[in-house]
Amino acid sequence: MFEAAELGRKVDKAAFAAAMPELRLGLLEAQRRAREAGVPVVILIAGVSGAGKGQVVNRLLEWLDSRGVQVQAYWDETDEELQRPRWWRYWRTLPPAGSVGVLFGAWYTPVLLDQIAGRADAQALAAEITRIVDTERTLVRAGVLVLKFWCHLPEKEQAKRIKERRKDPESHWRMAPETVRYANHYKDFVRVGTQVLRETDTGDAPWYLIEATDRRYRDLTIGRTLLKALQARLDAPPAPEHLQTSHAPVLPDAPSARVTVLDHVDLDSRLERDDYRQEMDHWQAEVNRLTWKAFRARRPCVALFEGWDAAGKGGAIRRLIQSMDARLYTVVPIAAPTDEERAHHYLWRFWRHIPRDGYCALFDRSWYGRVLVERVEGFAAPVEWARAYHEINDFEAQLAEHGVVITKFWLHIDKEEQLQRFKAREQTPYKQHKITPDDWRNRDRWDDYKAAVNEMVVRTSTEYAPWEIVPANDKHLARVTVLKTFARRLKDALDD
Amino acid sequence: MFEAAELGRKVDKAAFAAAMPELRLGLLEAQRRAREAGVPVVILIAGVSGAGKGQVVNRLLEWLDSRGVQVQAYWDETDEELQRPRWWRYWRTLPPAGSVGVLFGAWYTPVLLDQIAGRADAQALAAEITRIVDTERTLVRAGVLVLKFWCHLPEKEQAKRIKERRKDPESHWRMAPETVRYANHYKDFVRVGTQVLRETDTGDAPWYLIEATDRRYRDLTIGRTLLKALQARLDAPPAPEHLQTSHAPVLPDAPSARVTVLDHVDLDSRLERDDYRQEMDHWQAEVNRLTWKAFRARRPCVALFEGWDAAGKGGAIRRLIQSMDARLYTVVPIAAPTDEERAHHYLWRFWRHIPRDGYCALFDRSWYGRVLVERVEGFAAPVEWARAYHEINDFEAQLAEHGVVITKFWLHIDKEEQLQRFKAREQTPYKQHKITPDDWRNRDRWDDYKAAVNEMVVRTSTEYAPWEIVPANDKHLARVTVLKTFARRLKDALDD
Repeated sequence: MFEAAELGRKVDKAAFAAAMPELRLGLLEAQRRAREAGVPVVILIAGVSGAGKGQVVNRLLEWLDSRGVQVQAYWDETDEELQRPRWWRYWRTLPPAGSVGVLFGAWYTPVLLDQIAGRADAQALAAEITRIVDTERTLVRAGVLVLKFWCHLPEKEQAKRIKERRKDPESHWRMAPETVRYANHYKDFVRVGTQVLRETDTGDAPWYLIEATDRRYRDLTIGRTLLKALQARLDAPPAPEHLQTSHAPVLPDAPSARVTVLDHVDLDSRLERDDYRQEMDHWQAEVNRLTWKAFRARRPCVALFEGWDAAGKGGAIRRLIQSMDARLYTVVPIAAPTDEERAHHYLWRFWRHIPRDGYCALFDRSWYGRVLVERVEGFAAPVEWARAYHEINDFEAQLAEHGVVITKFWLHIDKEEQLQRFKAREQTPYKQHKITPDDWRNRDRWDDYKAAVNEMVVRTSTEYAPWEIVPANDKHLARVTVLKTFARRLKDALDD
Repeated sequence: MFEAAELGRKVDKAAFAAAMPELRLGLLEAQRRAREAGVPVVILIAGVSGAGKGQVVNRLLEWLDSRGVQVQAYWDETDEELQRPRWWRYWRTLPPAGSVGVLFGAWYTPVLLDQIAGRADAQALAAEITRIVDTERTLVRAGVLVLKFWCHLPEKEQAKRIKERRKDPESHWRMAPETVRYANHYKDFVRVGTQVLRETDTGDAPWYLIEATDRRYRDLTIGRTLLKALQARLDAPPAPEHLQTSHAPVLPDAPSARVTVLDHVDLDSRLERDDYRQEMDHWQAEVNRLTWKAFRARRPCVALFEGWDAAGKGGAIRRLIQSMDARLYTVVPIAAPTDEERAHHYLWRFWRHIPRDGYCALFDRSWYGRVLVERVEGFAAPVEWARAYHEINDFEAQLAEHGVVITKFWLHIDKEEQLQRFKAREQTPYKQHKITPDDWRNRDRWDDYKAAVNEMVVRTSTEYAPWEIVPANDKHLARVTVLKTFARRLKDALDD
């Protein structure tokens, strides 16, 4: 595929200069429009060594208004990055709405180097490509404009440049040791590059192959391509049908009368006071022991709590953390997003809070809001929440692959029990702050929520992150169940 | 001073239980009010080993609504933290408006351990205490409620507990090795603690000495103290006069007619085209070489750009970054703060962007907005901007102590030149986006801005972070001056 970039195309100085005014004015205008429209733009620059990726980025910074551009190199991984799932570093550096992110290599560099160095086999490569295609589609469907440029040089030209640059004591060749080591593995690089480019060249996020031998041709072509892509995106924002998954999601037909997983929960069981104390003592000690063990084993842990209003999420979390050392966990309450969070993909705010190795994050509500409240209240369009199941499964898969122990709780009560608790809250002074008009409104949509919960449990119960439906009409039983489940998940993960 | 915490006070089980309803209701109510009033609360828990600091924190999480509480332990410094000024880790973990941050030891632990281990002398201790007092005052004056609890045990009681805990295989004693090493240096700890507590026990952020021998007494006392402090703060929010610096700031008398540092700038010099090209080539090469050298030497670098509207900040920054490898720097444009930024102290948003060792951050406008636009437009009260000079000097001192090379540019043009540029912008299509009604409004307040700039330069030109006033009527001269100054600051810092 790279022959198309070995045609010897050139742009002379005069032609380059003549093209400048229109191009620069156009880029600034397009950037302004993207800012106003709140479109995040990802420009990914990759390619063979010596092709001048750094020069390209400098040129873009010269042409665009640098106040709206963030450049990201991905050299040395910090230990905060190493101690989290691999894509954490990419998620945290994605540009917010209206900004341009220029990314060097990004998620492609490790894939290429792993292949060339023989560290990953064909299966690993296939898995990684699936993840890339998936994630890029996730971004594009959320409105991100993703442009990928691959700068190519013929073998002889590269050899010449490497020789020249090695002579230059201030060149960056010594800076990224691994890149240097494989810089002149030209044939390997091109072979792996061909495969990766082909398989990740999707309609959502296409590759642009750039002939990089002549600098002016390279820069002008990238500039013009960028301009055209920006204009196309801004002139015709994706219509809802373009944002759809190619296969219509299987939407459940109004299931209010249907039997769901929730109808099989035994809500009548009770735990007597004495048994409760005994069980609590036992499982709290277990959780304490196991969280320390996880800390020493450097296994991170994510537990999330969803459930009906007044089902006792807060109380269950409080009982759980009583048993843990306060230095080992964070409680992450999920309320309305901040404006920085709103300027990103909805998963971005959760990626932010992924714990480091050895620590726990407890989410009081979670990313499942997308398929619960946002679905039922219409804050997310059907195409948006319909594709969220897949996005969430992939997100959790990435956590699990990194070694995160995931526990997901749905605290289940029935409608009658909820009514009793709402009334009790209204009558207890120190509980009044817990009941709001929203709670009563949500209650009116019980059946819609029930359908959403059912679909959520069915679609997102995976072997690596199963749902635990906790019978919560009896608070004692609910709390013990939470502790017990949490402890068992840790026990299994730690081979305890 | 610790005798007051060895009186053998106790609370029996019944009395503790009887006190609960009122205390818990009070705390929840106070927390709700603090959230509504947007008051950030810092609760710092320190004290001798074995006093049960972890238990205290768990208790607070049980009593408060844990959704509004963030616990911060400061164990292992990550490399991202090690590669930045020491207080970066504290700033980034401060609670936003309306939240409670519970901090273990925080900025006190390293001071105490450094003393006990003999790693720091009396002078270093004095410097650190000054920094602590300064920073706590900075926070308190910005509206943060800072409460510091010191949990004390008599020597015998500590010895007993350490013995017990060492027997417990799941205790955290093995977790923080340094704490363990000095756990039973009781006398040293008390000696150093006495000094540090006394010298940091300010009216702004007082210490509460807690007798920790009896757990119920300890927890109840802390709970009640916290409640009282919250109520006091919420019932009587600090009046403007309480927020004042104890000495009234020296406000300049309306200096519109006065001669300022800006009047001494020679704005008539010009740089001819040929000289310009030659100088640019030379200094761009120098900047390229020196930024790589700084990278290898792991020296970080901060450059900030302030100046009149249309003085050419953007152009100067563009010329500077053209000479640098795009992987080595970030441009940080300072516009209106996000809501997360608004929920913190005004310096928090700049601490966020402090670069890691070896990298550069270029600020397009900066923390000086506090004493420029916020002062002139009245967004900050006189007491607020008046104390900002000192806060900023201390902030920059912390950067400098860590090894950050700081360069500060004021791009200066005269009023006539600005008028010409405004008109030119209005007539050039690709520059129209750069001129807004705000620019014309600011222009009307030229003299007020001039007075503010003068005071800023006078008060914040330090040996570690001097201002460079760049004559910018001639753009060529301005750009070369910026490059040259930047290169020289690096050269000096690197002993090049």
